[in-house]
Amino acid sequence: MLISCVAYQDGRKIADIPSEDISEYVTRSECFVWVALFEPSSEELDEMAEQFGLHELAVDDARHGHQRPKIEEYGNSLFAVLHTIEPEKAADGSDVFNTGEVDIFVGANYVLTVRHRTHIGFAAVRARSEREPELLKNGAGYVFYAVMDDVVDRYFPVIDALETELESIEEQIFERNAARSNIEALYELKQKLMVLKHAVEPLMEATGRLYGGRVPQICAGMNEYFRDVYDHLNRIHTSLEGIREMLTTAISVNLGMISLADSEVTKRLAAWAAIIAVPTMVAGIYGMNFEHMPELKWWFGYPLAIGAMLVADAYLYYRFKKSEWL
Amino acid sequence: MLISCVAYQDGRKIADIPSEDISEYVTRSECFVWVALFEPSSEELDEMAEQFGLHELAVDDARHGHQRPKIEEYGNSLFAVLHTIEPEKAADGSDVFNTGEVDIFVGANYVLTVRHRTHIGFAAVRARSEREPELLKNGAGYVFYAVMDDVVDRYFPVIDALETELESIEEQIFERNAARSNIEALYELKQKLMVLKHAVEPLMEATGRLYGGRVPQICAGMNEYFRDVYDHLNRIHTSLEGIREMLTTAISVNLGMISLADSEVTKRLAAWAAIIAVPTMVAGIYGMNFEHMPELKWWFGYPLAIGAMLVADAYLYYRFKKSEWL
Amino acid sequence: MLISCVAYQDGRKIADIPSEDISEYVTRSECFVWVALFEPSSEELDEMAEQFGLHELAVDDARHGHQRPKIEEYGNSLFAVLHTIEPEKAADGSDVFNTGEVDIFVGANYVLTVRHRTHIGFAAVRARSEREPELLKNGAGYVFYAVMDDVVDRYFPVIDALETELESIEEQIFERNAARSNIEALYELKQKLMVLKHAVEPLMEATGRLYGGRVPQICAGMNEYFRDVYDHLNRIHTSLEGIREMLTTAISVNLGMISLADSEVTKRLAAWAAIIAVPTMVAGIYGMNFEHMPELKWWFGYPLAIGAMLVADAYLYYRFKKSEWL
Amino acid sequence: MLISCVAYQDGRKIADIPSEDISEYVTRSECFVWVALFEPSSEELDEMAEQFGLHELAVDDARHGHQRPKIEEYGNSLFAVLHTIEPEKAADGSDVFNTGEVDIFVGANYVLTVRHRTHIGFAAVRARSEREPELLKNGAGYVFYAVMDDVVDRYFPVIDALETELESIEEQIFERNAARSNIEALYELKQKLMVLKHAVEPLMEATGRLYGGRVPQICAGMNEYFRDVYDHLNRIHTSLEGIREMLTTAISVNLGMISLADSEVTKRLAAWAAIIAVPTMVAGIYGMNFEHMPELKWWFGYPLAIGAMLVADAYLYYRFKKSEWL
Amino acid sequence: MLISCVAYQDGRKIADIPSEDISEYVTRSECFVWVALFEPSSEELDEMAEQFGLHELAVDDARHGHQRPKIEEYGNSLFAVLHTIEPEKAADGSDVFNTGEVDIFVGANYVLTVRHRTHIGFAAVRARSEREPELLKNGAGYVFYAVMDDVVDRYFPVIDALETELESIEEQIFERNAARSNIEALYELKQKLMVLKHAVEPLMEATGRLYGGRVPQICAGMNEYFRDVYDHLNRIHTSLEGIREMLTTAISVNLGMISLADSEVTKRLAAWAAIIAVPTMVAGIYGMNFEHMPELKWWFGYPLAIGAMLVADAYLYYRFKKSEWL
Repeated sequence: MLISCVAYQDGRKIADIPSEDISEYVTRSECFVWVALFEPSSEELDEMAEQFGLHELAVDDARHGHQRPKIEEYGNSLFAVLHTIEPEKAADGSDVFNTGEVDIFVGANYVLTVRHRTHIGFAAVRARSEREPELLKNGAGYVFYAVMDDVVDRYFPVIDALETELESIEEQIFERNAARSNIEALYELKQKLMVLKHAVEPLMEATGRLYGGRVPQICAGMNEYFRDVYDHLNRIHTSLEGIREMLTTAISVNLGMISLADSEVTKRLAAWAAIIAVPTMVAGIYGMNFEHMPELKWWFGYPLAIGAMLVADAYLYYRFKKSEWL
Repeated sequence: MLISCVAYQDGRKIADIPSEDISEYVTRSECFVWVALFEPSSEELDEMAEQFGLHELAVDDARHGHQRPKIEEYGNSLFAVLHTIEPEKAADGSDVFNTGEVDIFVGANYVLTVRHRTHIGFAAVRARSEREPELLKNGAGYVFYAVMDDVVDRYFPVIDALETELESIEEQIFERNAARSNIEALYELKQKLMVLKHAVEPLMEATGRLYGGRVPQICAGMNEYFRDVYDHLNRIHTSLEGIREMLTTAISVNLGMISLADSEVTKRLAAWAAIIAVPTMVAGIYGMNFEHMPELKWWFGYPLAIGAMLVADAYLYYRFKKSEWL
Repeated sequence: MLISCVAYQDGRKIADIPSEDISEYVTRSECFVWVALFEPSSEELDEMAEQFGLHELAVDDARHGHQRPKIEEYGNSLFAVLHTIEPEKAADGSDVFNTGEVDIFVGANYVLTVRHRTHIGFAAVRARSEREPELLKNGAGYVFYAVMDDVVDRYFPVIDALETELESIEEQIFERNAARSNIEALYELKQKLMVLKHAVEPLMEATGRLYGGRVPQICAGMNEYFRDVYDHLNRIHTSLEGIREMLTTAISVNLGMISLADSEVTKRLAAWAAIIAVPTMVAGIYGMNFEHMPELKWWFGYPLAIGAMLVADAYLYYRFKKSEWL
Repeated sequence: MLISCVAYQDGRKIADIPSEDISEYVTRSECFVWVALFEPSSEELDEMAEQFGLHELAVDDARHGHQRPKIEEYGNSLFAVLHTIEPEKAADGSDVFNTGEVDIFVGANYVLTVRHRTHIGFAAVRARSEREPELLKNGAGYVFYAVMDDVVDRYFPVIDALETELESIEEQIFERNAARSNIEALYELKQKLMVLKHAVEPLMEATGRLYGGRVPQICAGMNEYFRDVYDHLNRIHTSLEGIREMLTTAISVNLGMISLADSEVTKRLAAWAAIIAVPTMVAGIYGMNFEHMPELKWWFGYPLAIGAMLVADAYLYYRFKKSEWL
Repeated sequence: MLISCVAYQDGRKIADIPSEDISEYVTRSECFVWVALFEPSSEELDEMAEQFGLHELAVDDARHGHQRPKIEEYGNSLFAVLHTIEPEKAADGSDVFNTGEVDIFVGANYVLTVRHRTHIGFAAVRARSEREPELLKNGAGYVFYAVMDDVVDRYFPVIDALETELESIEEQIFERNAARSNIEALYELKQKLMVLKHAVEPLMEATGRLYGGRVPQICAGMNEYFRDVYDHLNRIHTSLEGIREMLTTAISVNLGMISLADSEVTKRLAAWAAIIAVPTMVAGIYGMNFEHMPELKWWFGYPLAIGAMLVADAYLYYRFKKSEWL
């Protein structure tokens, strides 16, 4: 679906243009065209490929989607694949990550963005860019930066949510009886982490090649902007690694807590077993049928036996309490 | 076994040729010859080595098979070893991976593929290539790409199968009583993962040298194609690393679940032990033979005792239920 | 809030200047201006940006804070973000790390430090620098070094505190009954470690580019000073890695100690169960109601039975003591 | 002990020569001398050092043995240390690895091999080389390759043995009651793995410098041969890493199996305890001495009680069987 | 404390000189001065700094000690920090590592060694060097090598001790009842390992820059000597990594052994519980007070009951023995 197709000159929008006229504007060196597609049909992509002269392999990637994040040079043009991550409620009420994909074709005077499975578009980016003509004057490279920056900035709330989840697990990791829910939460967090990691890490690696060293022509003169994107990705990466390491530790610690809890159950089992077994043994003794058991005839034999049981149990209870088995 | 031996010119098949004529076609710079062998005898290989002038060390590798994936330059020719992975039913009904090997000799105007222990050949690749003469015009380098691409693309369904397996384990990792089957499934998955890893990683490393930097003569001008293969391998590699990391976590979590289950058994053991032991203790007490035990003479002594037992047990049951020991 | 704003010439303070005059001093090549801000308002930052001609992206970073440590070149100026870590008592009495941020803008003849969420300022650094005019003569680069050195040196007592904590955990890691408090302490230590790690590691990486190789103009001729800072960071990094590795080992060992403790509880449970069960069994036997049980009629039957029980238990006790189950 | 000392010219043996004449042959540029020593005395080494003009540090290394594998350049000569690994039966019947050492001095026209603690010599290599004069013509570099290749090829059966061991452990890792023997076997395998790893990895690193990039003079023109050795080492390295990773996983899994087994024991303990405790409780109740217990007087009271016990136990048994506790 | 201060010329000692004369000898290009200090006062260091013209930052490091190992260039001079490790008996009789520090200042014609907290000095190195004037002729660089070589060689017995400790742990890791002492020994070994690791690894990294590539002026022409030191450090590093990996495995294995031992205790508990509970149950049954229990009247009822108990227990005992629960 074609979302918008606009020609710009000198940092200012000159016209919404029909897609048939794209090739005409693209050939005018002082203009650039910015086209946005959302889940395009194969025919729409083919038309764009023709209008912009896109490389067959890149178009194939955009057609099939499900690529890993990357930034590739095809001659003087760039092809970038970014992942978007949108937290959603699953049908069963749990939080899940909806992974979308944004494919960007950038040439000397065009930018084509193709969104797959992602709700949020780039209208806001376009509006902001149009308000800053002095920056938009930089052309396709700047638009490329603006879109990347927008996608990357959307990762921050996701990371924050993961950190909050980790903290809420950490708060109850030393609680008794929380081991099962903790372990499930830790595993789920790890799964989400991996989704984010797969979105961020290949992109960080690729972005590192857009500033410093040999830079693609299109990004020339915008080093500081792309370094800023890289720096944001690096910050996310650092947070991810931090969460990952704490997760590993938390899983170990949780295992320890499970063992500790088990140990405590065994102790309580042992303590109560003793408290019940001792009177049972005493009762067993006075249940023996020997003819000559003088205690059995004493008036106070029975209360004495019960008393002995109680004293023994009181002592045991005190001992177990003291050693924290109970 | 010789599968096929075809000479091409200008991107089009000119003839099926007998293997004796190979050297004649190879010397014509406008032609190239594409030969496919399947588990060749030592003599067949020797003949090919002579016809194409292959390097002794490479021929030795192809003869013995069981090489690790690699791409080596011998002067102006290349020798590549790829692994194929075909899921199969083992004799005992379990899923196993059948690892085959494809050795490829590529020269300025010849391609020789040698398959070992793999069912699927390259007839489809050949057919597709012949339908695209404008690409096949690129000669041996393109054929090399097409074969690699085909082998690499066959890894995707295997990876998908592994991911599906992981997901099905994840679905029951928090189920009670599934620990044993989970642990077996996790270990088996790990074994399969290692097979795939050994096929993919050395190849990825080697493919990285076929584009960018100093590129072997044969692959010149096809940078974007080999980068595409590299990108596919990288994607597989990322998936493998993801599965691997989740596997490690899953094994830890499974260990936690085993401990948790053990803990729950201990709790239930303890609870039922208490519920049985308390009446036993009471019965023991009224089984004592003291002469002066007034309760024994009461009319309602027996029902009272039984009642006390039931009340105690009901209370215990309630407490254990509440604290989830039962 | 503007803390101070001083112009220096030839290594000596010439005047406290009002912030409006900054741009005037900055243009005089023999002077440099050192301004210190603490949690500035957006307007204060904007004014500074104008006076010094700071880059928009850097100012944005300083405005929002919460950056990862980094050192970036913007043309001939540098922008550095450092983290400060100040141990504090939390509301609930536990030790926590208060992470602050210091942003430093350095140009040919100015230094601007911006502190966020950190109590300790750089008055001491300024005083020390003013006492050493022969060093301060080096200008903005030296001030940059002095501030970095001060921030980095403040990490050492923090690291020492972590090492002391680790040692105190290690002292009781093989104590019985300390497993729960140990595991909590280990996890808390790990959390603190991660905070420090996030402050130190990106900075170390960035500092490595301030000496050797291509050095930013501002730091030229001060190689040995920045190498010294790098060396300090590296020392901290090595300590962190050491603590981290010991923590991982300690968590494993702690898990082992928990299992060992559990095992010991089971042994004691088993031992006492046996000691109680054996007399109970004997008592049960002599509680049977067979008519023909000659022992029941013996005078010494009862004491004999009791004696047998005592002997059996004494033997069991001795055996269990010997095998250390008790 | 001097094993052999032979002079070669043009790829052919010209004479067995006494060690005193070495220096004479070495000066003739068309010849090269290949000397083999086995556990030489210090004097023998000194003589060789003089004859060949070996570097003091290299000779010291060869004298003391117990070096790590390495390949060092001393001017125009090379000094290589390789490890040999020979599986042996230890005195107590267990399989152990006997680690030997081969030191190789290679110069423009000499090769000196020194074996320590290794049974198998290089007579076979020498014989094979002498049968291929066209290769031996390459001189000392070729001999160096041939010896390295021989040593490296001897690692393959060792690796195969380790893989077989791993497989045999894997076959019984999910067997009940095999945990103890598995864990011992896994640890032993790990120890053997480390021996092999220490032999292979430093050597791989060193061999990587013998082809591609700046190659030592002696190995010039033999790139493909040394790359082949490197490739073999890399293959071994990949196998080692694979075994290592599976070992780590197997140890985790084994730990899980131990916990599972423990859990199963606890379940059976609990089940049988219940089956015994219920009749004991019932018997206890009818062992009470209340005067008014009508059941005690019923004719069918006793069989009824026994029957109730049996029914209860049958029910419990059925339940435990169903939930697989028994 | 000044230990010695000697001037050398042409590889030979010319005089013990007073420290005031140092600067005079240092200016003579054909001489070099070798000074050894032991825990010098601040004044002694200041004097040396003046005499030799040492860099302030390096002198500061030497003054405060507790540096990490490093080798730094200051103009044409070098400053090295090495750690010494001396095993000692602690006050409580345990083995501990005493970590000392050796700071070395090396210039074109001076060497200054400063020892902290280390008992063993360099008198032996000096004596050996003086016996080899042809090597000592190389000047300060050679002395630097000789001291480094001496310090590094002292690591070998320490490593050997660690390996011996590891082996002695390995010998009893599968012993029953050794888990607690093993785990303590493993942890202690890990602590020692870390001490050594911190001494060796930074030094190895630093030494790697003293040969090959751009070499500091002072070490020029001594490539092979410093490579030898590097090689020794590398060997130690490899051993450390080996010990470290085995330690990790051993801790896992130990955890498995603890679980196994626990499992065995549970089995024995279960077995004995059954053996005691069965007669108790039988006795309970014949302790019931039913009026109509024909067995109670049989002459042989009692011995039959006892017999039944014995038979049941014998059978249980046999079964448990067979399944190795006992």
